[in-house]
Amino acid sequence: MSFLNNIKIAVIGGGSWATALIKILSEQPNVQIRWWLRNQDDINHIRKFHHNPSYLSDVHLSPKKIKVFEKTTDAVKGADYIILAVPAAFVQESLQGLTEKHFKGKRVVSAIKGMIPDQNILVTDWVAEQFKVPLNETCVIAGPCHAEEVALEKQSYLTIASTGNTTAAEFAKLMTCRFVTANPLEDLYGVEYAAVMKNIVALACGITHGLGYGDNFQAVLVSNAMQEIGRFVTALDPREREISSSAYLGDLLVTSYSQFSRNRLFGNMIGRGYSVKAAQLEMKMIAEGYYATRSIMEMNKSFHVNIPITTAVYSILYDEQAPAGVMEELKKNLK
Amino acid sequence: MSFLNNIKIAVIGGGSWATALIKILSEQPNVQIRWWLRNQDDINHIRKFHHNPSYLSDVHLSPKKIKVFEKTTDAVKGADYIILAVPAAFVQESLQGLTEKHFKGKRVVSAIKGMIPDQNILVTDWVAEQFKVPLNETCVIAGPCHAEEVALEKQSYLTIASTGNTTAAEFAKLMTCRFVTANPLEDLYGVEYAAVMKNIVALACGITHGLGYGDNFQAVLVSNAMQEIGRFVTALDPREREISSSAYLGDLLVTSYSQFSRNRLFGNMIGRGYSVKAAQLEMKMIAEGYYATRSIMEMNKSFHVNIPITTAVYSILYDEQAPAGVMEELKKNLK
Repeated sequence: MSFLNNIKIAVIGGGSWATALIKILSEQPNVQIRWWLRNQDDINHIRKFHHNPSYLSDVHLSPKKIKVFEKTTDAVKGADYIILAVPAAFVQESLQGLTEKHFKGKRVVSAIKGMIPDQNILVTDWVAEQFKVPLNETCVIAGPCHAEEVALEKQSYLTIASTGNTTAAEFAKLMTCRFVTANPLEDLYGVEYAAVMKNIVALACGITHGLGYGDNFQAVLVSNAMQEIGRFVTALDPREREISSSAYLGDLLVTSYSQFSRNRLFGNMIGRGYSVKAAQLEMKMIAEGYYATRSIMEMNKSFHVNIPITTAVYSILYDEQAPAGVMEELKKNLK
Repeated sequence: MSFLNNIKIAVIGGGSWATALIKILSEQPNVQIRWWLRNQDDINHIRKFHHNPSYLSDVHLSPKKIKVFEKTTDAVKGADYIILAVPAAFVQESLQGLTEKHFKGKRVVSAIKGMIPDQNILVTDWVAEQFKVPLNETCVIAGPCHAEEVALEKQSYLTIASTGNTTAAEFAKLMTCRFVTANPLEDLYGVEYAAVMKNIVALACGITHGLGYGDNFQAVLVSNAMQEIGRFVTALDPREREISSSAYLGDLLVTSYSQFSRNRLFGNMIGRGYSVKAAQLEMKMIAEGYYATRSIMEMNKSFHVNIPITTAVYSILYDEQAPAGVMEELKKNLK
């Protein structure tokens, strides 16, 4: 495992998932983590107290392994890996100071479950294009994983998907520790689109819950959603894939059944009668499934896959159709 | 839909699932339900007050459509369908007074999610053999469905599986009403074994929850379980089946994620350190997954399918191995 010696990893983003990934990576004996956060108060606090005051604040952040930076250009200096862990909506803004040369010879890891806004393009594709990183030197972290449970060191599993076998295998080793097992997988697009679509499903679960549907209905909704995701990714990238494995199904389950999912919460408000605007104001943020719904619907203009659940969510969020009526129609398409 | 006119349906069993099925069937305009319950107090109460005092007691039981009987021989008289809705452990005992002639020309519906004890045989197979009912005149009710949500008229979906297409289609029509959609399916064995095995998975979910594992782990456990069930039923009865559909996955989800599942509760006690005996005493009953575990392990002696989750549960329940150690080992087999 000599490749593990003194691996330098830049992490871009200061949220709970970034903090959880840093906790996992810190379990490796010989890593240096170069962490960029936007918020200066958080940076100062981490330097002084070795805890992130805003997210997973009980996680100790070892100063021997972790250095925080104000500038992305400093954070990525000499890095072997650059992990992107900001919300999809802020990727472009966060990487503004960086150019092709900053990425040269580095692998890029997307920990982002969403697409570049208004471009309907996956983060890995965008990075490959924008910064001339070979696609097989990029990978994506997926799998059923609440950051909060990583903080508590509860056994979790991740999937590292890449078109490059070596990239996936080597980064999976870095992400495997006492309480996390990471497995490599070749199916970059399948895993990434399934991760995007699961947030739409979580919206649908929230909406129907808000409307008063119960657990019987949710089980059917999630089963149909798994098939919908399977159909869509097969149309995009036909290949043998075990859709019931944890990279796809597990990820969907953790999001759909979580009471803490922002997407589910957002959907729940819509189901209970909030307007999209009101729900956004109430949550002080926009759930990623909101953008994902539009992106997938746009893409599907070329693919013509039968995606009734995504279509239903779209017509509620973007066409201002009444949730009760839309779900009454959707019911007939489920079985 | 002339076949719906004056259909006579005998229901054997007085629990919550039997009561829910009767509520669904009562939605049909022209049915006569002939209901056998074991408990004389319940029978008297239902006759007088038109509610089952022991289960789903808020459900109104229309005396115009429902007649209760003390004897199974009376209940099945002239019936078109006989629905079996007692726990698997009591099927033989409940049907003791009945012989081949009582079943002649009648269809038999199993609403039982378990196998005949000590015989490792499905209820439909046992009925076909014992009472000379043609297998294609039997069917099984499956699908994600808490009886409690049926009582509340929450939208639910059922699957009616049979080797006989007409049997499945006609009974599915009887089970479809304002708040329930029932779909026919040809895959009798796949659906029935999946229904049996899901209770083992619920035990495993309970055990790991009791041991302190979190939602991340459960999502991976359930994903792996779905694949385990898929492998097992494929070995038994190889055919094209969409394992992510609600007959298989939906059913698994409703059971695994329910806090009210008796199997999950039983497993949870084992995980928290109760002995099998103590957990049984505490619950005053035995969870069906307990028997199912042994039956599936026995059957697998001929099939040699890789079923690590069932094997783990078996070694905890029957070989008295410590849950923590067994699950520590199982962890390595999941991904």
